[in-house]
Amino acid sequence: MLNKDLKILIVGLGLLGGSYAKKLTAEGYHVKAITRDPKTIQYALDNKMIEYGTTELDAELIGESNLIIFALYPKVFIKWIGKNGHMIKPGTVITDVTGVKGSVVEMVQDMIPDGVEFISAHPMAGRESSGIAYADDTIFKGANYIVVPTEKNSPEAIAVCRELGDTLGFEKISELSVEAHDKMIAFLSQLTHCIAVSLMCASDDPDLVKYTGDSFRDLTRIANINDEMWSELFLLNRDALVQEMDRFRESFDKLYATVRDGKREEMRELMRTSSERRRNFNK
Amino acid sequence: MLNKDLKILIVGLGLLGGSYAKKLTAEGYHVKAITRDPKTIQYALDNKMIEYGTTELDAELIGESNLIIFALYPKVFIKWIGKNGHMIKPGTVITDVTGVKGSVVEMVQDMIPDGVEFISAHPMAGRESSGIAYADDTIFKGANYIVVPTEKNSPEAIAVCRELGDTLGFEKISELSVEAHDKMIAFLSQLTHCIAVSLMCASDDPDLVKYTGDSFRDLTRIANINDEMWSELFLLNRDALVQEMDRFRESFDKLYATVRDGKREEMRELMRTSSERRRNFNK
Repeated sequence: MLNKDLKILIVGLGLLGGSYAKKLTAEGYHVKAITRDPKTIQYALDNKMIEYGTTELDAELIGESNLIIFALYPKVFIKWIGKNGHMIKPGTVITDVTGVKGSVVEMVQDMIPDGVEFISAHPMAGRESSGIAYADDTIFKGANYIVVPTEKNSPEAIAVCRELGDTLGFEKISELSVEAHDKMIAFLSQLTHCIAVSLMCASDDPDLVKYTGDSFRDLTRIANINDEMWSELFLLNRDALVQEMDRFRESFDKLYATVRDGKREEMRELMRTSSERRRNFNK
Repeated sequence: MLNKDLKILIVGLGLLGGSYAKKLTAEGYHVKAITRDPKTIQYALDNKMIEYGTTELDAELIGESNLIIFALYPKVFIKWIGKNGHMIKPGTVITDVTGVKGSVVEMVQDMIPDGVEFISAHPMAGRESSGIAYADDTIFKGANYIVVPTEKNSPEAIAVCRELGDTLGFEKISELSVEAHDKMIAFLSQLTHCIAVSLMCASDDPDLVKYTGDSFRDLTRIANINDEMWSELFLLNRDALVQEMDRFRESFDKLYATVRDGKREEMRELMRTSSERRRNFNK
């Protein structure tokens, strides 16, 4: 667990920033926030998610914080650091929630002042809806939290980042390199969103909903997607994603051939492989 | 609701047959069963799912039943009717739970004795696990039930079949022709299973589970699949399924091109289409 005396600042009170704030405050931490919309701050105060919030770039607030969590879209995060990073005091640990790392981590680590340490993390939790009104700290329960250290990170900062994941209630905390993270995420998260969107776009039949079962519902849950955020994430991880999309297509084509050619035994073999692997994923 | 005096016979106490039995008995109907394994009968009796069961082809039992529900794999169902259909008495209504209709309905309607009426139905509910031990009548709640009449069916039998769906607790009961049903099911159910299996087969990385989020879990829930049943269903509906797989591939390729070529606006447009359509599917 994190030290209770830490002064925590969250920059960006969206779905994730809000969920972090809610949980950390509930656990008894001092949480302040900077975000764009004054209504968001009012909501967070009304719901006891933060003890103080502002829409201003308050140098004193930024300077006094020991742990700053950036819960912004990747490009907004990079620009924020480029413009305001100088306000962060040496000794401060900063972390993030960004869904891609290759285009972000090195850039941010190179821009922050000496003595400030950026240790990146990816909380594998979310919802289809965005905004603080959907903030929900139960989404961390049973979920995975990936810390993404580079050779610039100290064991101490890595430990703080892991403790943050633990304090938030994540079940499994692991570490991956930037490259391994982006490849993993291309497959596990981005590709799944591509599949769901493609399936949803494949038919405009308005009657489908009358006949659907849960398999279609579950598979397309994430087809209701924040297009601004996800298109940015896809393009920031383009090479890895294209590679994983190729891999899926190859696998789909293999199954397709068994259906088209009536190769039942080959089809069953693929189904058995699939079933065996999937059983490991039950929570 | 069905008439309470009906003598209902369920042939095949698997996951679906068992769930039908459980619900109908709970609603106060007289439910008897024929199934292969004596242990299944014992389980159904112990759990008050049926009032009587046998592994025998009991001519008296078959003859006295007013409504017979076949909860068998498609080919087993057809063979059962071909071999034993003569034991069903005129005036009896029979129905099924079969997931494909083109290869089944006409065949069965042509084999049954004069005066017996087969009205086909597809309950859009299930689980990843098979067998009576997983029988669960809550799976019908909020689910869709599709009645598939042909020109051989009478309004009376169609009404009985709809009442059965209603009694079981399905939320939406609708009707489709055999062709429309098979096309719909190829897209909504079979294609989704193909996608989940293909995704699961696309990577053998044993570490994936350490990093996964719920999107991958939900999308691949049905990748744990009964290979015997689904390979049979796929091949019995091969033409429609191949067509829907083609349609999905085309849609996937369109999104793929926007990622590969960095066409962000086109990508966002696809995501917006997807989101808008998906919102109609929320329960």
